[in-house]
Amino acid sequence: MLHCLKLGETSIISEPREREREREREMLYIIGLGLGDERDITLRGLEAVKKCDTLYMEAYTSLLSFGLSSDGLSTLEKLYGRPVILADREMVEERADDILAEAGRSNVAFLVVGDPFGATTHSDLVVRAKKLGVEVEIIHNASIINAIGVCGLQLYRYGETVSIPFFTETWRPDSFYEKIQRNRVLGLHTLCLLDIRVKEPSLESLCRGKKQYEPPRYMAINVAIEQLLEVEKQRGESAYNEDTTCVGFARLGSESQMVVSGPMKEILKLNEDACSWAQLDMKFVIVSMTRNED
Amino acid sequence: MLHCLKLGETSIISEPREREREREREMLYIIGLGLGDERDITLRGLEAVKKCDTLYMEAYTSLLSFGLSSDGLSTLEKLYGRPVILADREMVEERADDILAEAGRSNVAFLVVGDPFGATTHSDLVVRAKKLGVEVEIIHNASIINAIGVCGLQLYRYGETVSIPFFTETWRPDSFYEKIQRNRVLGLHTLCLLDIRVKEPSLESLCRGKKQYEPPRYMAINVAIEQLLEVEKQRGESAYNEDTTCVGFARLGSESQMVVSGPMKEILKLNEDACSWAQLDMKFVIVSMTRNED
Repeated sequence: MLHCLKLGETSIISEPREREREREREMLYIIGLGLGDERDITLRGLEAVKKCDTLYMEAYTSLLSFGLSSDGLSTLEKLYGRPVILADREMVEERADDILAEAGRSNVAFLVVGDPFGATTHSDLVVRAKKLGVEVEIIHNASIINAIGVCGLQLYRYGETVSIPFFTETWRPDSFYEKIQRNRVLGLHTLCLLDIRVKEPSLESLCRGKKQYEPPRYMAINVAIEQLLEVEKQRGESAYNEDTTCVGFARLGSESQMVVSGPMKEILKLNEDACSWAQLDMKFVIVSMTRNED
Repeated sequence: MLHCLKLGETSIISEPREREREREREMLYIIGLGLGDERDITLRGLEAVKKCDTLYMEAYTSLLSFGLSSDGLSTLEKLYGRPVILADREMVEERADDILAEAGRSNVAFLVVGDPFGATTHSDLVVRAKKLGVEVEIIHNASIINAIGVCGLQLYRYGETVSIPFFTETWRPDSFYEKIQRNRVLGLHTLCLLDIRVKEPSLESLCRGKKQYEPPRYMAINVAIEQLLEVEKQRGESAYNEDTTCVGFARLGSESQMVVSGPMKEILKLNEDACSWAQLDMKFVIVSMTRNED
């Protein structure tokens, strides 16, 4: 896929996979694992895994949501019958060409939580592969982008997606504010992706030139709401307020998923019950209001 | 899922599936089959299918895209080892309560091309089930909404999704125009879902009070572009023009998928080559421009 065969001014980005198969070239498979656990891979995905000599598991995003906190990759390795190499952002960025060279000689799988082009895009890897003449096959799966449909809000009625980054003392970017405002004026829901910081080098270690990492951090829904309300207070343009209805999702698509809806101020209160809060462990929130609801 | 346990003003829509399992109640499984063929079901989905006594296959949308044109449901039935009942819109609307009553007595699966909450929502069935006290489990899969990521455009940068209906002599709804315009002003891509008319009663038969059906129709990308340009000509507000870049997808996620990009006028020309056009058989198009590209 992502070929560019020129047909006049029209480029055919993708050829049928059948034709690629005929060539019987070694492949890079980018395989979506879905959102729950190892059983959310598709039959097509598992078939591809079994054809591969080397398996990499993308670890940019939360592996915790994939039930991999305690026993690492063992549930996957047991199902696949072969070892899985954990590939963090650093490894993929620094060693992408090695991985791709390997895929030119043997079948290599790059496993991704969700869909290959869902919450984290892997377009860069595909583009690099194409440049090196390595064939790529994408195997799709569910991602946050469609699984949020479970709360009943129409997927057609979402505007632009925003990210809510962890605020620091000196860095408090709030470009999400205009986007949420714009969506709400148009009566569209907003999917807010909450910050995940995994294997981030500490500022201190960067200064010392020796890599040390911050402990992993996952933004909880109450932190997101506090930041949203702080920005509303500063800007004062009534994009939303503490009575605005939100939907929070925890471990979406997994067996222990939770979906909670209510006004921001009520969802904040959930936090007071430390026990139920820890159980919620939410990653995503939607600010989902139409013009007429306020 | 979709419980409403009130916690103050906050409603918990969904309880963990684990707890539902403990009850060992009979279930309605709504299972996404993904976009390609029978091998795109997840292991979790196939497990659920094997637990079910009755299998319904949703047939609102294109089954052709699922490779089911020639031999009906036999590829699915072979994999599942049991018969599959084709459920068209009429059957689901008229017999939903029978299906749900059945799910109260035995495990029933409702199979859906793509994701259960993707291009076609099945929220209504879930809400009805909840009212009747029937437990529901959703098994997610890839849908058009995330699989379009394969063309390389960021999923975060899409605005509201629009539908392009077949124009008739007397019915030429063009509400998609403002939505595309709005998205383009904001620099957002627009996913356009092209009309599918399957088992639509003919106007003539409705008048005679005896149901007869129109032959199935699937909008091709050239018809969509002609309609888009016709509306632009009438409205004249420069929402887009024949030089606007589009991406067309045919059989997305299947082995024979095609992705084509180019200006509207060039994609229209593809149609002239009847052979390659028939091979394309496109269902979806994105008008994907930022403000600065014109």
